[in-house]
Amino acid sequence: MKSIAYYNGQIGAQEDLKVSFQDRALYFGDGCYDAAFVINSKVVDFDDHIARFFNSMRMMRIEPAWTPDEVRAILMDLVNRLDVPYGFLYWQTSRGNAPRNHPFPKDAKANLLCFYNEKPGMPDVMKQVSMITVEDVRYYYCNIKTLNLFPNVMANQKAMEAGAGEAIQIRPDGFVTEGSHTNVHILKDGVLYTHEDGNLILPGITKKHMLIAAREAGIPVVEKAFTREELLAADEIFVSGSSTFVERCCELDGVKREMRDEANYRKIAEGYLKHTLDVTR
Amino acid sequence: MKSIAYYNGQIGAQEDLKVSFQDRALYFGDGCYDAAFVINSKVVDFDDHIARFFNSMRMMRIEPAWTPDEVRAILMDLVNRLDVPYGFLYWQTSRGNAPRNHPFPKDAKANLLCFYNEKPGMPDVMKQVSMITVEDVRYYYCNIKTLNLFPNVMANQKAMEAGAGEAIQIRPDGFVTEGSHTNVHILKDGVLYTHEDGNLILPGITKKHMLIAAREAGIPVVEKAFTREELLAADEIFVSGSSTFVERCCELDGVKREMRDEANYRKIAEGYLKHTLDVTR
Repeated sequence: MKSIAYYNGQIGAQEDLKVSFQDRALYFGDGCYDAAFVINSKVVDFDDHIARFFNSMRMMRIEPAWTPDEVRAILMDLVNRLDVPYGFLYWQTSRGNAPRNHPFPKDAKANLLCFYNEKPGMPDVMKQVSMITVEDVRYYYCNIKTLNLFPNVMANQKAMEAGAGEAIQIRPDGFVTEGSHTNVHILKDGVLYTHEDGNLILPGITKKHMLIAAREAGIPVVEKAFTREELLAADEIFVSGSSTFVERCCELDGVKREMRDEANYRKIAEGYLKHTLDVTR
Repeated sequence: MKSIAYYNGQIGAQEDLKVSFQDRALYFGDGCYDAAFVINSKVVDFDDHIARFFNSMRMMRIEPAWTPDEVRAILMDLVNRLDVPYGFLYWQTSRGNAPRNHPFPKDAKANLLCFYNEKPGMPDVMKQVSMITVEDVRYYYCNIKTLNLFPNVMANQKAMEAGAGEAIQIRPDGFVTEGSHTNVHILKDGVLYTHEDGNLILPGITKKHMLIAAREAGIPVVEKAFTREELLAADEIFVSGSSTFVERCCELDGVKREMRDEANYRKIAEGYLKHTLDVTR
């Protein structure tokens, strides 16, 4: 699989590029990122991803060192250099280079790090995935796509070790929030339930367009947190994310699930897939 | 101020050293650190700091790439190269280099990054500091010294902008946890109260030896979380940490405080100071 990487103007292989010793991403995870799927050198929902990236910076009070158009141009240059049918594009910034000290450094310039990896093909939106539930022990900045992802790493690792593909996080109060790198949704009696936006979940871009597809298919959408009990009683459980599109849960915590609403799941999944093909035509 | 740095065997100035593009510290904050004050080339409580570092790795399931004695030797080499009367020694590890992907990479070797900075002198344990209170919005891995420090950066920045020296974090349930990079304690009616160990605070090494000094001075110690109201009603509020030793709160959220138990505060602070001089003689 081909790959290309970028750091503050340098372009090369990930294995060869080097990063500043004083990059605040290293000491504090003091930065944010975004990522998107690419089809035929067109980035899926690029405007949304660029807007969310700048919004994450605004919430973290990181001063951008480039305009949105400059970031787009840097990213499109990587996409065009690799020239592959399918790829995954990742970019992150940090608050700049400075001797390690908690407060924002004066006069530091934000760093930009990017990579673009070839992917073998389109995600399969009818893919059935085994999932587990884990306690959500994260901070309360979950609406910002920061580099503070240790709890997500641990949740995802736990899923892998259980032979599962995703970990669904549940707060101690019993409310389901999101996956380790996806949003989580359920279908119950023909209605799609998903956690409302706020500081407990990321405002997912795949989720946003998937909800549009659901509504267009006539499926009522309720954006309201649901509980572990509602998760267990759901007709369908599914997750959405930029790298995997949508995936359907066929087994939870080692127990096979009846998937009781394939008709509506299919409408949502195929509606989202059509959206990605439309915007990358 | 003199400084020296280290990354996986390279030694040089912080400004010159480079870090691998694939270091997981950059993407996930997937690593941990420790740090200690140095007096006359002796590291204060070195055994404790090395033990906590390896314990953080154990809790994060990072496989160390060196023995504790090897880490000590690398750090002492930096201390001896700089040869300054006072310094601050910092070291961190991450789960190694790998293409960005949440689960633990197979066959990756942990990275080691260190720096040692000259300090102008000993911390002043009678220093009076203005502090603020902020909501504790962190994750529930606060007992591990991970690199996921964005909430600490934001809390500390808020203190700086308020003209204060530290931010005291309080959970939504009203219990005081710790500062942005210190443990927090109060004196009330001659008794020292401090948060019990657990996943809400770091097991502070300065705190540990400060509590020994307090007990030796005949001051009762209660390790139990206290509330915002108890904080406000305290005779003394003070914080402890490896870089600042102990500091006393003279103003909270912009309101000057009566410091009503200088006698006991002084016993604790001077007892701790004596400890550092004893262990670095």
